[in-house]
Amino acid sequence: MTFDAMFNAQLQVLKDEGNYRYFKELERKCGKFPRAADHTEDGSTRDVTVWCSNDYLGMGQHPKVVEAMCEAVRRTGTGAGGTRNISGTNHDHLLLEAELADLHGKEAALLFTSGYVSNWAALSTLGSRLPDCVILSDAGNHASMIEGIRHSKARKVIWKHNDVADLEAKLAALPSNVPKIVAFESVYSMDGDICPMREIVEVAEKYGAMTYLDEVHAVGLYGARGGGVSEQEGLADRITLIEGTLGKAYGVVGGYITGSAALCDFIRSFASGFIFTTALPPAVAAAARTSIRHLKESETERQQQRRQVARLRALLDREGIPHMANESHIVPVMIKDPVKTRMLADYLMDEWGIYVQPINYPTVPKGTERLRFTPSPLHSDADIDHLVSALSHLWRQCALAHAVA
Amino acid sequence: MTFDAMFNAQLQVLKDEGNYRYFKELERKCGKFPRAADHTEDGSTRDVTVWCSNDYLGMGQHPKVVEAMCEAVRRTGTGAGGTRNISGTNHDHLLLEAELADLHGKEAALLFTSGYVSNWAALSTLGSRLPDCVILSDAGNHASMIEGIRHSKARKVIWKHNDVADLEAKLAALPSNVPKIVAFESVYSMDGDICPMREIVEVAEKYGAMTYLDEVHAVGLYGARGGGVSEQEGLADRITLIEGTLGKAYGVVGGYITGSAALCDFIRSFASGFIFTTALPPAVAAAARTSIRHLKESETERQQQRRQVARLRALLDREGIPHMANESHIVPVMIKDPVKTRMLADYLMDEWGIYVQPINYPTVPKGTERLRFTPSPLHSDADIDHLVSALSHLWRQCALAHAVA
Repeated sequence: MTFDAMFNAQLQVLKDEGNYRYFKELERKCGKFPRAADHTEDGSTRDVTVWCSNDYLGMGQHPKVVEAMCEAVRRTGTGAGGTRNISGTNHDHLLLEAELADLHGKEAALLFTSGYVSNWAALSTLGSRLPDCVILSDAGNHASMIEGIRHSKARKVIWKHNDVADLEAKLAALPSNVPKIVAFESVYSMDGDICPMREIVEVAEKYGAMTYLDEVHAVGLYGARGGGVSEQEGLADRITLIEGTLGKAYGVVGGYITGSAALCDFIRSFASGFIFTTALPPAVAAAARTSIRHLKESETERQQQRRQVARLRALLDREGIPHMANESHIVPVMIKDPVKTRMLADYLMDEWGIYVQPINYPTVPKGTERLRFTPSPLHSDADIDHLVSALSHLWRQCALAHAVA
Repeated sequence: MTFDAMFNAQLQVLKDEGNYRYFKELERKCGKFPRAADHTEDGSTRDVTVWCSNDYLGMGQHPKVVEAMCEAVRRTGTGAGGTRNISGTNHDHLLLEAELADLHGKEAALLFTSGYVSNWAALSTLGSRLPDCVILSDAGNHASMIEGIRHSKARKVIWKHNDVADLEAKLAALPSNVPKIVAFESVYSMDGDICPMREIVEVAEKYGAMTYLDEVHAVGLYGARGGGVSEQEGLADRITLIEGTLGKAYGVVGGYITGSAALCDFIRSFASGFIFTTALPPAVAAAARTSIRHLKESETERQQQRRQVARLRALLDREGIPHMANESHIVPVMIKDPVKTRMLADYLMDEWGIYVQPINYPTVPKGTERLRFTPSPLHSDADIDHLVSALSHLWRQCALAHAVA
């Protein structure tokens, strides 16, 4: 069997299950978000409305952010030119790290090339270098955390998703003298549910465990200055490490951790995924910093987003279209079959110019396939009306289950 | 012991060994490369000449590349807004992937957020999903390859660095029917040596092994169109997978693999590090593509770089300053002690305005600490004279070993 034949055999399994992924080819249009051009298979393009972006507030096209990036490209060039250690640390990186430390009220911050890498590198370093460390990981944690923990070879204990009693039982069963890390997220991306943060922090403190919090779907969006759910709940100072991203609400790219100076210096000094990689372009850092600073001051985007999220939910309720209840900005509509989910998404795109990516395995467990809508402050009332009309039409036409009133 | 105390204890070991890292804070100045501003500890700045950048050809400030990035930021915004699957695939990504496939004469290419991630994700996916796979890894391979192989949990066999006889002995000792991957680099970054590619390919072919080639320190720099050593040697079509970076000679950021359509689709469909991360900004893709296209056509930068590399080596030889012999653009001057290497680097910076980062563990093995110079086409003859004067002065002053004529 040739290598290509081996590859194709495994790809065929995905195709047979309906889990093979077709990427939509878009052209983002700065100033027109959530509109984008869809490149169709026949080579033509047409405008569609994007309903599944993680540029949650449209900051990726904010004039100040766009201007900051262009200014910095013209000032510093297009790349960093090296790893952070070997000529790659620029003034713009340090300004951004100071901004991030301030955002979360921490002593220090450390930038990574992505949120995935920040989780993977930080958890694999902590787990591998703290002797006898045990990592207690929420069952719903993101792939980047799972892979980081796995890579660390530390002992892993999975606790039931958002279940503090289970977490406590598992903490209590561990020896008191081993280092423990409780790893969890604030907003879970696919269900949009928010963790019981205060209870988790209190239990972790009771057992002397470090808290590792992923706020990637919350930074910029929650808290008076966009510091995430930990800021909103007044808990940031009690959390050991807060991890976040520059690629979602902040509209650029990159990831980071914040915490004590010793913690950040430790990861900086030992994490392979931090040390051996080219630094982010200074222009990316400059754009991200501008976005963070804007959202520290401005509530406008957050308030308008909340209004549009509430409006979408109310109209879905009115039409009896079932969506998952949660306290966040993420509106999942469950379909529970990969082929049907794709069919609905294709229909929305082809007939209604609505782009929502079918969410399938491995992003969600098999049997929980869904459409995941992320209303932004830039989705107009008319956009929402159009979406709900389309879904209502589909629900009638396809005889899909309605919510029981 | 608190967590901070545990972190500080391990950091103290680095400090005691002389391996603790101090990042130099630079400001790259677009249009002035290799000059940059150094932010000193007292808060002042002054101009220095960077001698250790991996922006090997200064493409990070090329007017066409700078313009392409700014144009694309203004056209598409500052970020991709999602993973490749969920609204993050943009037309600019696909144009870049087509450009990369063409660069290496392959059917397809796949972009990653960094070269580190491309190696880690591709090798961990291949090693974990090809049943009974054995990965034969050159002893000098980069951390990203080592971590990818480790993460795959596949059986790993390390062969002596650039030793084809050892590779063949190890291939011959394996069962004939298991999938084998020979993983190696073209240009090794810290010694600057180049692999015996033809012999490696021939041995791999003899034993039916896949070849996995990292060309990150070669793309843009070798081959008539910048396709790397594999292009220069006419071997690209015989190599299964060629991995490269957009963050060194191309002057931007990001990584990629190229290979058969089935291979790229396989990694695209199964690699956690590809699936679960925000796509690179379309503007990064546009800038990288412009850089690649320029270096496909233009030999000017490569020729001038070679001239300056040869000039530096000749002057070092004249002064009897020992440097490692190799066929590449990388000029390592061995010091073999971390404290002494740092002292020399500090002196070059403070007294001569020459920035070369001391290279220490874990980037190189302990006892092989060095200064690593990377002359670019933009280092002038006067820059080289100034560097050699400084080194000659240091060698005399510090009674360092001279090369034996």
